Amino acid sequence: MASEVSYCLSWRVAVEANNARGWRIVPSQCVRYVENYMLGGQYSSDVDAVVDQMASYLEGVAVEDGEKDAWILDVDDTCLSNLPYYRERHFGGEPFDSASYKNWVMRGVCPAIPAVLGIYEKLIERRFHVFLVTGRDEELLGACTAENLAAQGFVGHQKLIMRSRAHRGHGAVPFKSAIRRQLVAEGYRIRGNVGDQWSDLLGDCVGDRTFKIPNPMYFVP
Amino acid sequence: MASEVSYCLSWRVAVEANNARGWRIVPSQCVRYVENYMLGGQYSSDVDAVVDQMASYLEGVAVEDGEKDAWILDVDDTCLSNLPYYRERHFGGEPFDSASYKNWVMRGVCPAIPAVLGIYEKLIERRFHVFLVTGRDEELLGACTAENLAAQGFVGHQKLIMRSRAHRGHGAVPFKSAIRRQLVAEGYRIRGNVGDQWSDLLGDCVGDRTFKIPNPMYFVP
Repeated sequence: MASEVSYCLSWRVAVEANNARGWRIVPSQCVRYVENYMLGGQYSSDVDAVVDQMASYLEGVAVEDGEKDAWILDVDDTCLSNLPYYRERHFGGEPFDSASYKNWVMRGVCPAIPAVLGIYEKLIERRFHVFLVTGRDEELLGACTAENLAAQGFVGHQKLIMRSRAHRGHGAVPFKSAIRRQLVAEGYRIRGNVGDQWSDLLGDCVGDRTFKIPNPMYFVP
Repeated sequence: MASEVSYCLSWRVAVEANNARGWRIVPSQCVRYVENYMLGGQYSSDVDAVVDQMASYLEGVAVEDGEKDAWILDVDDTCLSNLPYYRERHFGGEPFDSASYKNWVMRGVCPAIPAVLGIYEKLIERRFHVFLVTGRDEELLGACTAENLAAQGFVGHQKLIMRSRAHRGHGAVPFKSAIRRQLVAEGYRIRGNVGDQWSDLLGDCVGDRTFKIPNPMYFVP
């Protein structure tokens, strides 16, 4: 048991450091470990640690009037949590099922991740231009996503940017890179970029600092 | 105590995910935690997990005769361990002292990190062009580094590339990026890139895959 915990902790750290890539499900011997991690307090502690790093970085970043200082935040498991969905699916120990996942998302009831909402509010208050950028399909999930975000307190961002028809079928790295290049072309300086997947944080124009929110439940290439 | 372990684990994961940057010493409340981590087995387990990822990635990477398929490995705390030195210095809980560190390095007695030596031997056997790239000063530390590596079994690499006069005073990212750009200009394809610092793995021409070896004892910008 001790060695299983040790193995699963090593696996989780390998995920967070982008050493483990392309995995489809949580290793079966780590499902219980991931459950304990997500519900037992360590996940919250880890999110708090990332948000603390954001907050201390923010202290050194001044926004001047007229400057286009931007932050980018991903949506799923960055702003909004899918933990209630994954709880019913062995915390990522089952293959991804797009039909049931879409049904879940369309209900529009994802709870905010509290620490991320806190720093989001600070960014808005500090007058950064905040862009929420998500691979969710705009046509199908646009309305429910906007409503879910607003209901959970994510109010005041510059724009919610979703996957349009033009980007259907593209991987997350090219899609999000294209969005960031566009923002930079419009004169924005990306001061920070926050996501739970490395595919949010790699590619072009990744920003002055990236922040990886922990997520041991699934991997988006 | 439980909450201190939880805090220090969160800090360590933040380091591995490149969320915590620019830190100068291990937080004082985490020195004991880092000691337990480095000596108690979890560090070895984490290194093994990274090396396992390298091994399974390697299975899908073919080397063809005449192709210039390269791997890059950092030296300090990637191939060779400085743990005996940091043991005497509170596992990173003291500010870096370049004089005593140079004395340690000049003794040439850094032990190999066993799992990394194992995968290094596999790379050599598979006929990859392996480059060891280190920020150690060539003039001062060239001889002792080459001898230390050879004595520990790191034999058969294409070249040990150290910091020459031209790169003195440059940060690790520009220095290592310049070396990698040069290798790519010479026709090498960097199939993998391994280091214990994110400054080994970011910048230009980082390679097809990067592998972050854990290191909670110090941060190289």
